[in-house]
Amino acid sequence: MIVVMDKNYTSDNINQVVKYIKDKGLETNVSKGKSKCVIGILGNISVENLEKISAMKCVEKISKVQEPYKKANRLFHPEDTVVNVNNSKIGGGNLGIIAGPCAVESEEQIVEIARQVKDSGADFLRGGAFKPRTSPYSFQGLELNGLKLMQIAKAETGLAIVSELMSVSYLDEFMNTVDVIQIGARNMQNYDLLKQVGRTNKPVILKRGLSSTIEEWLLSAEHIMAAGNENIILCERGIRTFETYTRNTLDLSAIPVVKKHSHLPIIVDPSHGTGHSQYVESMSMAAIVAGCDGLMIEVHNNPKQALSDGQQSITPNEFDKMMKKIKLLSELDRNLK
Amino acid sequence: MIVVMDKNYTSDNINQVVKYIKDKGLETNVSKGKSKCVIGILGNISVENLEKISAMKCVEKISKVQEPYKKANRLFHPEDTVVNVNNSKIGGGNLGIIAGPCAVESEEQIVEIARQVKDSGADFLRGGAFKPRTSPYSFQGLELNGLKLMQIAKAETGLAIVSELMSVSYLDEFMNTVDVIQIGARNMQNYDLLKQVGRTNKPVILKRGLSSTIEEWLLSAEHIMAAGNENIILCERGIRTFETYTRNTLDLSAIPVVKKHSHLPIIVDPSHGTGHSQYVESMSMAAIVAGCDGLMIEVHNNPKQALSDGQQSITPNEFDKMMKKIKLLSELDRNLK
Amino acid sequence: MIVVMDKNYTSDNINQVVKYIKDKGLETNVSKGKSKCVIGILGNISVENLEKISAMKCVEKISKVQEPYKKANRLFHPEDTVVNVNNSKIGGGNLGIIAGPCAVESEEQIVEIARQVKDSGADFLRGGAFKPRTSPYSFQGLELNGLKLMQIAKAETGLAIVSELMSVSYLDEFMNTVDVIQIGARNMQNYDLLKQVGRTNKPVILKRGLSSTIEEWLLSAEHIMAAGNENIILCERGIRTFETYTRNTLDLSAIPVVKKHSHLPIIVDPSHGTGHSQYVESMSMAAIVAGCDGLMIEVHNNPKQALSDGQQSITPNEFDKMMKKIKLLSELDRNLK
Amino acid sequence: MIVVMDKNYTSDNINQVVKYIKDKGLETNVSKGKSKCVIGILGNISVENLEKISAMKCVEKISKVQEPYKKANRLFHPEDTVVNVNNSKIGGGNLGIIAGPCAVESEEQIVEIARQVKDSGADFLRGGAFKPRTSPYSFQGLELNGLKLMQIAKAETGLAIVSELMSVSYLDEFMNTVDVIQIGARNMQNYDLLKQVGRTNKPVILKRGLSSTIEEWLLSAEHIMAAGNENIILCERGIRTFETYTRNTLDLSAIPVVKKHSHLPIIVDPSHGTGHSQYVESMSMAAIVAGCDGLMIEVHNNPKQALSDGQQSITPNEFDKMMKKIKLLSELDRNLK
Repeated sequence: MIVVMDKNYTSDNINQVVKYIKDKGLETNVSKGKSKCVIGILGNISVENLEKISAMKCVEKISKVQEPYKKANRLFHPEDTVVNVNNSKIGGGNLGIIAGPCAVESEEQIVEIARQVKDSGADFLRGGAFKPRTSPYSFQGLELNGLKLMQIAKAETGLAIVSELMSVSYLDEFMNTVDVIQIGARNMQNYDLLKQVGRTNKPVILKRGLSSTIEEWLLSAEHIMAAGNENIILCERGIRTFETYTRNTLDLSAIPVVKKHSHLPIIVDPSHGTGHSQYVESMSMAAIVAGCDGLMIEVHNNPKQALSDGQQSITPNEFDKMMKKIKLLSELDRNLK
Repeated sequence: MIVVMDKNYTSDNINQVVKYIKDKGLETNVSKGKSKCVIGILGNISVENLEKISAMKCVEKISKVQEPYKKANRLFHPEDTVVNVNNSKIGGGNLGIIAGPCAVESEEQIVEIARQVKDSGADFLRGGAFKPRTSPYSFQGLELNGLKLMQIAKAETGLAIVSELMSVSYLDEFMNTVDVIQIGARNMQNYDLLKQVGRTNKPVILKRGLSSTIEEWLLSAEHIMAAGNENIILCERGIRTFETYTRNTLDLSAIPVVKKHSHLPIIVDPSHGTGHSQYVESMSMAAIVAGCDGLMIEVHNNPKQALSDGQQSITPNEFDKMMKKIKLLSELDRNLK
Repeated sequence: MIVVMDKNYTSDNINQVVKYIKDKGLETNVSKGKSKCVIGILGNISVENLEKISAMKCVEKISKVQEPYKKANRLFHPEDTVVNVNNSKIGGGNLGIIAGPCAVESEEQIVEIARQVKDSGADFLRGGAFKPRTSPYSFQGLELNGLKLMQIAKAETGLAIVSELMSVSYLDEFMNTVDVIQIGARNMQNYDLLKQVGRTNKPVILKRGLSSTIEEWLLSAEHIMAAGNENIILCERGIRTFETYTRNTLDLSAIPVVKKHSHLPIIVDPSHGTGHSQYVESMSMAAIVAGCDGLMIEVHNNPKQALSDGQQSITPNEFDKMMKKIKLLSELDRNLK
Repeated sequence: MIVVMDKNYTSDNINQVVKYIKDKGLETNVSKGKSKCVIGILGNISVENLEKISAMKCVEKISKVQEPYKKANRLFHPEDTVVNVNNSKIGGGNLGIIAGPCAVESEEQIVEIARQVKDSGADFLRGGAFKPRTSPYSFQGLELNGLKLMQIAKAETGLAIVSELMSVSYLDEFMNTVDVIQIGARNMQNYDLLKQVGRTNKPVILKRGLSSTIEEWLLSAEHIMAAGNENIILCERGIRTFETYTRNTLDLSAIPVVKKHSHLPIIVDPSHGTGHSQYVESMSMAAIVAGCDGLMIEVHNNPKQALSDGQQSITPNEFDKMMKKIKLLSELDRNLK
């Protein structure tokens, strides 16, 4: 950590900062230039203590040198994390394919889609029972009944099930029904929710917030890990930019960046990322060769009748064609490494 | 609402869309151009039903004509909403000044700051008991004990108290202790929390999300209002942009925009909005003449020792000087109207 | 085009708008709802005339139905454009690989790199002679001498050469030396420059502006095409967002979006797009399977001695390995279609 | 400047970096921590030399300590710059009010508006003769004839005239006709144009680019100053964000930020900044109390007939009312200092 002194610094100011740091049991290195003075802090200083330094009048700014996350940091955990869900694995070379409708609508719908995506090679069934909707007047999901229908689909197909948890009040129900808890983009910094799922051992898919930096995203993972749960799968789902031809801007460079900084697996959701079914296949294929550990794809047997997000869902038939390409690509990709 | 047909549309496609809309009990207007056809929908169509239309292959896109929020919409409620808190009012020409530290740290600290900001003319005391922190290793607040200290400060000064609620589990404690519940930027789309505070009659400060459009913000207010609570104060606190010289970009144009579209009062937080104490006074004054209904200012008696956000807190002395200017400005501003 | 009337519209207002439109020789369709009235305009109305409508007090807003670009629009030109440069082609299934240093530094440097990238399979040599630099104190390029060195490298290798034109004053020199003129991101809306290159028949690479929407980018292509030059290659090179782990956010979804809306070829520059050499290979591979028509890659024989952008340049050896993978990928990709 | 070494650094690596820096005639300070090593550079290192360091494999990153602009930097020039234009001044407590239409349309139009804005207290007349338009099919301005009409309006009223220069080819004509050359947002990084106006002594209004940081903006001013022209007025005109209720997001915090970092005057254009005439007055007043040195306001005698940007222009009558308020505000503001 580096403290940059104000241009009007005096020797007293330097002594004051150095004393403050030494009082915390840390060492310093002072470098005086002609119009600037810089003080290096050696060792681990906590965030609160840093903020106090930056509030001193004689300090211009503070520059970080190390990443603020530890458990999620590849530096301290060089091996890829592999998350196990029932008999499937995600991470460390294992590709996890999650498919299903945006929202669970009926037993017939969810079971039919589950069968079809399983036939095409999916390992996980996604389906929203509780839906976060921008408008209070939109369809909010079938709620607990939706979870029951997911379980029926699981019983029929053996697919592991993934659903979004929006409220700590339903955590117990989710523990008993789903195989993976999804935390949505809007709740990426709902720290109460992160802490509660962190106290379980249930695998968690943590979606990137709409305008979260990768550092903030890894810090949200750190919140879950600090509470005890290390079974985390990151999910890139597009960030907010000024572009309007796509719903969000899918940040595929997040894949190699996360791989560099963290050991956690990362999957990609091109359905929310682009918002248009016609762009899902090309972005899925791109994500695979960019090195992701899986995909989350919206599949609906009747997109134009879907109760939500129909315009970004592909059909089971389109999914099947895409999966064939993905298998070939991912084989080639493995050979190229 | 306008449906724009795909360029390859057929008469059958038009009939299909028109039939779908008429089956919902609504009327249509069809306009055929040379290469485009547009269908107007007259009346109120729900969001789910719209999504189905946009998923039809023959439809290129849908354009909204009306705002999606109703209770928060000035169109249906032309008079300014005035929120009453104990003996103070915010909105409709009443300026509410909220001041205090980012975090409650001790009885001595909160009571001293409370006395000073009251002397300078503040009506409300802010103070964080539960702190949303990006890192799990930062100071998380004094929690329930913080609320108790706020109550002591209230007993000493009579100031109404404002504190941030992050978890529905603490709603009962907040109902019994604070005068205004603050929903932070990170929780602006935590719909579970919005719905729960919506079921109370406690005044709510709803901060704008870091990358939320004004429309999304008003829709979050609508979530609270739809649940029954109309005592909402909006708070602009800066949005995320590419600029790095400020912590966020304070969007003061949100003030006249909100005034046009909604009847709800809007206040401004220049401390988080800029992230630097030296910019707080100029942005506060600008917000006043732009027409805001109040300010939320971080004041700390010892910023360099503050446990959080010291660099953006002003001292009680700086606050006092600023309040004198604000009184003059706000008098002039009233005369100019 | 759709005109949405203000909620307080009168019949006179409608007549006024309708008359204005009819006077331009166009037809209208009026749809009156309970609290809104919408007027459709059939036929082609110019942008200036539209702006006048939106300034009328009785008009709330205007919604576009058709894309504002015509020559660049796939709607009116369904076949892929193929740009021919000497013996190479870009677009319509032909992949163009452009490689070379950020800046030309010396004859030895540019000739050595040219030989190496040619051996690995590149068709084009890039090299900056005139460099747009944020700071006036940075290295500005070898200027005209740089172009001469590029010609030497062309004579040695036969590679077509690509260099950035920043000023109309040098257009003649560029016409006589380079095979493709590059317009950089900062000049994407330098309309004087666009118009001048539009009057030539030289192939142009048009980079996307740092914060340009795809629509604005296609409109800049339209400026060149409207002046007479249709040999345009679009180049996605990352957009500005809040993310800091990458220099820009590479928007790979721009590939299928451009393919849908335009017939022009699109290539990708992952070197500027990510800003880090270690992310270049994965993003290049992703761009290929996403359907791009080529790549522009910074290659330097000694990145740590490069006079600019060394941190994002790969070595000839890394480029060679990547090209082998790209050939395999692109074969597979062709088979998958 | 701080060099952060890679975690796998060796003593050899340190020696290599230190030697490189010392060879440039600069001194270093090495601070070794447990898992990190940091090297401070004392003195002024050029940007190219820095880039070479950051490309070394053993270096993780480089952190800047000093601002990269010098002539524009308040650190080296503490007094406010005052720009003199004929008999008017902008900066150092002198408010410059610039008003007029987006585009010059006719002699009658420009002379009438000039008279009216002069009567209300404007010092400068703005008017576009050459218009940068996103679409090549929009009205491009009256070009040289527009400049002649501006001169007629100047002869009638004595107002100094301001017009946008888009091409170096017209620099001579501008030198002979306008009093202030405006560089538009799209050309903020057109370095060829900056350098050419830098070689004159004509006052320049430099608009902030649509997505430029304040640092980049000051560096563009530095380009002009480095070429010899120090008569620069910065103009904040809104930045691009995700918000859609306003055309751009007007960044009023840029005023105190620029005042802190630079001695150059800064004015505000709320017409482009918000894109809606109804928000111009409140944002103008806010800009004044935030400390700006002037305003640039679009005024049109017949906004609904304007050939461009009618929806953001106010009428001469609205301008007159606003100017009365601004005089009162600015008097109060002076007294408050």
